[in-house]
Amino acid sequence: MTASDNGQKKIRAAILGASGYTGAELIRLLLRHPNVEIVLITADRKAGQPVEAVFPHLGGEGLPDLIAISDVEWGGLDLDVIFCALPHATSQRIIKGILHETGHGFIDEMIIEQPEDYASAIKSSVKVIDLSADFRLRDADTYAKTYGGAHDALELQKEAVYGLSEHYREDIKKARLVACPGCYPTAALLALIPLMKEKAIHRDGIIIDAKSGVSGAGRSLNEANLFTEVSEAMHPYAIGNHRHAPEIEQELSRAFGEDLLITFTPHLIPMNRGELETIYVTLADGQSAGDLRGILKRHYQDETFVTIVGENTTPATRDVRGSNNAHIGVFEDRIPGRAIIVVVIDNLVKGSSGQAVQNMNLMFGFDESLSLEQMPLFP
Amino acid sequence: MTASDNGQKKIRAAILGASGYTGAELIRLLLRHPNVEIVLITADRKAGQPVEAVFPHLGGEGLPDLIAISDVEWGGLDLDVIFCALPHATSQRIIKGILHETGHGFIDEMIIEQPEDYASAIKSSVKVIDLSADFRLRDADTYAKTYGGAHDALELQKEAVYGLSEHYREDIKKARLVACPGCYPTAALLALIPLMKEKAIHRDGIIIDAKSGVSGAGRSLNEANLFTEVSEAMHPYAIGNHRHAPEIEQELSRAFGEDLLITFTPHLIPMNRGELETIYVTLADGQSAGDLRGILKRHYQDETFVTIVGENTTPATRDVRGSNNAHIGVFEDRIPGRAIIVVVIDNLVKGSSGQAVQNMNLMFGFDESLSLEQMPLFP
Amino acid sequence: MTASDNGQKKIRAAILGASGYTGAELIRLLLRHPNVEIVLITADRKAGQPVEAVFPHLGGEGLPDLIAISDVEWGGLDLDVIFCALPHATSQRIIKGILHETGHGFIDEMIIEQPEDYASAIKSSVKVIDLSADFRLRDADTYAKTYGGAHDALELQKEAVYGLSEHYREDIKKARLVACPGCYPTAALLALIPLMKEKAIHRDGIIIDAKSGVSGAGRSLNEANLFTEVSEAMHPYAIGNHRHAPEIEQELSRAFGEDLLITFTPHLIPMNRGELETIYVTLADGQSAGDLRGILKRHYQDETFVTIVGENTTPATRDVRGSNNAHIGVFEDRIPGRAIIVVVIDNLVKGSSGQAVQNMNLMFGFDESLSLEQMPLFP
Amino acid sequence: MTASDNGQKKIRAAILGASGYTGAELIRLLLRHPNVEIVLITADRKAGQPVEAVFPHLGGEGLPDLIAISDVEWGGLDLDVIFCALPHATSQRIIKGILHETGHGFIDEMIIEQPEDYASAIKSSVKVIDLSADFRLRDADTYAKTYGGAHDALELQKEAVYGLSEHYREDIKKARLVACPGCYPTAALLALIPLMKEKAIHRDGIIIDAKSGVSGAGRSLNEANLFTEVSEAMHPYAIGNHRHAPEIEQELSRAFGEDLLITFTPHLIPMNRGELETIYVTLADGQSAGDLRGILKRHYQDETFVTIVGENTTPATRDVRGSNNAHIGVFEDRIPGRAIIVVVIDNLVKGSSGQAVQNMNLMFGFDESLSLEQMPLFP
Repeated sequence: MTASDNGQKKIRAAILGASGYTGAELIRLLLRHPNVEIVLITADRKAGQPVEAVFPHLGGEGLPDLIAISDVEWGGLDLDVIFCALPHATSQRIIKGILHETGHGFIDEMIIEQPEDYASAIKSSVKVIDLSADFRLRDADTYAKTYGGAHDALELQKEAVYGLSEHYREDIKKARLVACPGCYPTAALLALIPLMKEKAIHRDGIIIDAKSGVSGAGRSLNEANLFTEVSEAMHPYAIGNHRHAPEIEQELSRAFGEDLLITFTPHLIPMNRGELETIYVTLADGQSAGDLRGILKRHYQDETFVTIVGENTTPATRDVRGSNNAHIGVFEDRIPGRAIIVVVIDNLVKGSSGQAVQNMNLMFGFDESLSLEQMPLFP
Repeated sequence: MTASDNGQKKIRAAILGASGYTGAELIRLLLRHPNVEIVLITADRKAGQPVEAVFPHLGGEGLPDLIAISDVEWGGLDLDVIFCALPHATSQRIIKGILHETGHGFIDEMIIEQPEDYASAIKSSVKVIDLSADFRLRDADTYAKTYGGAHDALELQKEAVYGLSEHYREDIKKARLVACPGCYPTAALLALIPLMKEKAIHRDGIIIDAKSGVSGAGRSLNEANLFTEVSEAMHPYAIGNHRHAPEIEQELSRAFGEDLLITFTPHLIPMNRGELETIYVTLADGQSAGDLRGILKRHYQDETFVTIVGENTTPATRDVRGSNNAHIGVFEDRIPGRAIIVVVIDNLVKGSSGQAVQNMNLMFGFDESLSLEQMPLFP
Repeated sequence: MTASDNGQKKIRAAILGASGYTGAELIRLLLRHPNVEIVLITADRKAGQPVEAVFPHLGGEGLPDLIAISDVEWGGLDLDVIFCALPHATSQRIIKGILHETGHGFIDEMIIEQPEDYASAIKSSVKVIDLSADFRLRDADTYAKTYGGAHDALELQKEAVYGLSEHYREDIKKARLVACPGCYPTAALLALIPLMKEKAIHRDGIIIDAKSGVSGAGRSLNEANLFTEVSEAMHPYAIGNHRHAPEIEQELSRAFGEDLLITFTPHLIPMNRGELETIYVTLADGQSAGDLRGILKRHYQDETFVTIVGENTTPATRDVRGSNNAHIGVFEDRIPGRAIIVVVIDNLVKGSSGQAVQNMNLMFGFDESLSLEQMPLFP
Repeated sequence: MTASDNGQKKIRAAILGASGYTGAELIRLLLRHPNVEIVLITADRKAGQPVEAVFPHLGGEGLPDLIAISDVEWGGLDLDVIFCALPHATSQRIIKGILHETGHGFIDEMIIEQPEDYASAIKSSVKVIDLSADFRLRDADTYAKTYGGAHDALELQKEAVYGLSEHYREDIKKARLVACPGCYPTAALLALIPLMKEKAIHRDGIIIDAKSGVSGAGRSLNEANLFTEVSEAMHPYAIGNHRHAPEIEQELSRAFGEDLLITFTPHLIPMNRGELETIYVTLADGQSAGDLRGILKRHYQDETFVTIVGENTTPATRDVRGSNNAHIGVFEDRIPGRAIIVVVIDNLVKGSSGQAVQNMNLMFGFDESLSLEQMPLFP
C-alpha cells in the first residue's frame, strides 16, 4: 500500500479480464478512487497492448500494459484485491487458484500454465470480487443445471457472499469472496426483496419484463450485436430460459421464505447503456401501490444509490446513465389488486462494475460511495 | 375516376391532416397504388406549402399543394375516398360533415368555416377511413370516460366498422366508415383474438408489455420527443391508464364472449419505427405453447400479412420494418401453464397507414395487398 | 424465361454472395421486379440455410435455399444474369469462369472445385453485374497498387463497363460485364462529372468529405462495427488512403480530360443507411454557385433518380432512405470563388444494389426504373 | 464563502438560464466541485419547479428550486461567480446589470423588472462567465453583422476575455468577464492556433468540415430536432453562413497576424454528444504532417485536457464522451503539400460547460482540473 491523497493507504488492485466493457468500466471507476492503485490488468485477447490501444478513452493515466493471465508474475505484486471480469467457468478456476485452493488438478492448463506460481505468490489476505456468474448461485445442482456443468469450486461457492450491496452489506464487509449479481437480478432484487420480505406482494405470478442496452452483451464478436442488426430494431431473447431467472428466484425465495418461480423475458434495445425492468405483481390483501412505495421508501431511506420516485414520476434510464443509481417507481395497475413496478439502472455501473466497486469499498472499510459519486450523464 | 395502368378506374382520394407522419405514410403508400389518385391533401399547420417543403422525401410526384381544410373547394373534387388523419375529437366533427350528417350545430367553427359547403359538395357515395381514435370504441360511455368528453357523432360511432382487416374483412368490404385500430391494439389483437375465440387461454391475467418507436408519438413539438431526450434512453409512459387499453379490452371481450380487463404498459424506445408486444398469458387446461402456435397458424394460414414464426425463431421489429407485415411467435414460459407471445409490426404501416390502405383495398374491391407488397427494409 | 405479369418474359437471375447486406438488398429489390425470377442464391458462410434463416425479412417468398458456390449445379439453371456480390479478388476469378475465360489455371481451388463445370454449363449469352471493386479501375497498375496485387482477368477488366447508370447508359445497354461503382464514387461522380465536363470548376483542390452509415461496412464480424462501438460516436477512417479515391479520380480525370487528384475522407456515422458527401470546389472564372446548379439541373433534367434541389433546400439523407434517389444541392461558400456541393444517397440502393438493378434494367431493355420506384422511407 | 471539504473556502455560484442542456451540464459538474456551492439557479421557462422536475438526473442534491430571473432577491446571495447560460442578446443586457454598468436604459423590461435591485445588490467583486455568443466577437461591426443588431454593452465587449482556456490562460486568471468560445470554435482553434502562430500552414484555403451531436442545438422545441427527424439521418446546415465562422476567423487571424477567411460547414449527426472537425489545410513550404503533429505535441505537452494522438491513431468522439478532453490527430493527405487534421471534443463539456468550469478554476486560483477529472464514458 502507498499513501493516497486523503492520507489513507492505497490498496493494490488487479483486474483480470479487461478486454471487455465490464473491465474497462472497472478501470474507469478505479482510476478516480483515492484509495486504489491499479497494478495489474490482464486481457488474453489483447495481451501485450497498452490499455489505450484497446480503450483509447482510458489513455494517459499511467496504467500497466495488458498482459496474458498466464504471463503474470504474481510475486511482488502484493495484491490486496482482485476483480475477476473473466468468462463464466474460467472465473471459478482462476479464483480457486488465487484463494489458495490449489492442488486439486482443477486448473485449465490452456489458461494457466503455472497455477502454483500465483497460488503461492498471492498474499493470503487477498480479497476477490467476481463479476462472472460463477459464484452467484448458492446451490450446486441449480448451478450445474443452469450453466451446463458441475461447479469446480464447490467450497468457494458456499463461502461466496452474494454482492447485492444494499441487502448483504454486513456479509460483504467480512467476505473474502464476493459474487457480484447479474445486471438483471440487481434491478429486480432491489425492487422486490423488501416487498417479499414484508409479504406485501404474492409469492406467485411475478412477471419481469426486462429491457437492456447492448453493452450487456459485452464486446465479443457476434453478428447479432453489429450496429446494423441492432439499430432501429428490438427483440426479446432467451425467452423462458435466461440464466438470470434462477438467480432472481434464489434471492426472492430467500426473502420470502418459500421457494418460488418467476417469469422473466429480456429484450435487446438499441442503446449502449441502461436497463429497465417492468415488473407485474399481485398485491397481498389490503396492500396498495402506495403501500408498496411506502415500504420501499422506508427500506431505502438511508441509501445513497437507491431512490424511490414519487407517484407522478416515471423512472427513465437516462436519469441514471453512467451512475451507480437505481430509480424505482410503483404504479397502480388498472386491474384492482395488481401493481406495476419500474426499475432503472445503468447495467455497466450498478448492474456490474459500479456495484463491484461499491462492494470493494465495503470490504475495505472505505466510504461506500467513493469513486461512485459521479452524477449521471444526460443527455 | 380515371383509367389506371392496369386498366381499372382510379379512385380519387383525399388525405385530411397530412402534416404528421401518418399522413406522410399514407401518401407514400398511395403514390404507388395503381388504382388511386391523390387529389386533395390538407394540413392546417403547413397550409400553402408544397408537399415537398414539408416532406422532401415525397417530392417530384406532382402532388397537390397542402391546403387548410377550411379553404378546400369540395365541389368538383369528386372524391371516392377520404382518409382522416386528424387529431382525435376533430375527426368526428369533420367526418360527420362529410357523411352528410350536418345540420346539428356540431361543427367546430374554428376549423371549418362553411361546413354546409362540403357537406353538400361531397358525393354521397364517398367512403371514409378514419385513422383517429374517434370511432374505435363502440360504447358511448367508454368513449366519454376514455377521451374525456361526450361523442359528437353517436350514430356514426354505431355505424363505424372496426378496421382490423384480418378479423372484420367482410364488414369492412361493406362499410361506409372504417375506424382503423390503434397501433398497440392492432398488434395485440392479431395475436390474441384467435386464442380468445377458441378459449385457449384464460380470460384473466393477460399482461401486454408494449414497446414502440418514437414515430408513434407523431411529429408534434414535445420536449419529450426531442432526439436528445429519447436517444440512448427508454422509459414507460401512461402506466395503468393508456387509452389503447379499453380498445384492446373491447375487442378481446367480444372475441371471448365475456367482459375482461387487461394490464397494458407501453414503453418509448429509441428507434423511429417498430412496435413489439410481449404478452403474458395463462394457458387453458390442456393447452401448450405449441397448441397456441397451431391455432394461430391455422387461423392465419391464408393471410398475406400475418406470419406465425417457428418455435426457434424470435420475432424482431427489423424483420417487418417499412412493411405491412406482422410476425407472431409463441413461447413456453418457465412456469408451467403459462405462455409468452411476441408480436412485431411497423407501427406506421400495419399499425396505422398500411392497414388503412389495406382497408381501402377491401372497401373498393381491389386486391387486398395492392401498394402494400413492399419488402421490409433491413438494415 | 417464363412469362411475367406484364406479359414479358422473366429473366433468370443468380445472386452470388448473398450473406451480406448488398446481397440481401438485391433480393429485396428483385423480388418485386416483374421481369425477374431469382433462381440461384449462393452464400458460402450460410450455405444450406433457407434465406429466411439468414434474413428473416425476406421470408415467405419461395426463394431457393442458400448454397455454397462450389455446390451449384450450373447446368439447367439457364441463367440470363448473374449478380456478383462477392468479396474483392474472389469476384474476378469467379466472373472469369462464368464468362468462359477459363483454362488459364486461375481458379482459386479453395473456392471453386470444378470451375470447368460451370464455365461450360452457363449459357454464353449470360450477363454479369459485379458489385465488387474488381472491375471498376480501368488501369492495371492502378488496380494492382490500390488493391495490393495483380489483376487476374485483365482482358475482362478492359471489357467491363463502369456502371454509373446516368453517365454510361449507352455502354451499359450493350455490356456483357458491368462493374457497379462504389458507394462513395457514385455520390461524388453524380455531382461532379457534369461540372468537370463543362470545366465549371477547377481541376485541382477538390475536397470530398464523406459520411456513411454503417451498412457500408457489410455484415462481417468486426469489433469496430459493434453497436456499442458505433452508437453515440463518430470518427473518420482510412484518411488519405481509401480505395475509392483512385476510382473517383479515374472518372473525374476522364470527364475533365486531364489527370487530377482529389482529397477524400470518409467518416463512420451512427446510422444504418445513408451517405452524404460535402464537396468543396473552386469555381472556374466567371462561374457562380447558381451556375453550377444550373448545369446540374440541365444535365439531369430527364433523369428519374437524380434531383437537384433548390437553393433554399438542404439535402438530407432521410429524404432518400431506402430509395434509388440522389439529391444534390449547390451552395455559395463564404469565400468568394468557392462553392460547396452536397450529395445524399442511400448507400445500399443507389450506392450499390439499386444501381445494380438499374443497370440490369438497361442491359435487358426494361424500363429503367422497374422495381426501383419505391418512395423513400421516412421517418 | 463556506468551508469546503479540502479546507478551502467555497465560492458561491449562480447559474442563470438552467432550463437547457448547457445549464444542466454546469450543475452536473459544479455539484462535484469541492470549492463551489450553487446558491441560485434561474430558468424562466421552468420557474417554480425543483431542479429534479426538469432534470431528474440531478435530483437529491439539495439544490435550490428554479426561479425566474426577475424574481431573484439578489441581496444576501453574496455571489462570487455567475454563469450565464442565457440566450444570445439577453445575455449582454443581464451581464451589463450584474457588472454595475447600469443606468443606461438598456435593460429589457420584459426580462428584468427591477434591474437596479440586483445591480446594487450584487457585490462588486463578482466574476461573470458567459456561455452565450455575446462577448466572443471583439469587433462591434462583426458582432452587429453576424448577430443582426448592435451590441448593447460595447465597453464590456472590449473588456471580455475570450475563454479558450489553453490559449488565454493568463488573461482569464485576471478577468472579470470571460466569454466562453462556441463549441465549433473551441475544437477548431485548439487544432489550428499553434499551427497558425508558427506559420506551419497556409493562411488561405482552410476548410473545416464539422459534425456535431444534437445536444448542440439545445433543449428548445424545434421540429428539426425531434428524434424521428434526426435518428437514422444526417444533413449539413447553415452552409456558408454559420455564426461560428467569424469567431474562428477572428482568433485565427490574431494567431497568424493577418486577416483571413475560412470555409466552415457544420453537420447534424444522430448522436447526443460529440463533435468532430475534419480540417483540410495546405502545408507551408517544407512542412509535413509529421511536423504539424510535432508542433502540436510540443505546444500541448503540459496540458491536462489536450492530447495529440499518434500517427496510427484516429480520433473518435467516443473517446472523449462526457469528458473535458480534446483529441487531435494529424494525417497526410494523398495530395502532396496538404494535411488533414481531426479534432474531437464533447460539445457540452470542453465545447461548453466544462471549459466554463475550467475558466472558473483559473479565475479563482483553483486547480485547473477540479471537477473535470472524470474519465470519458464508453460505451
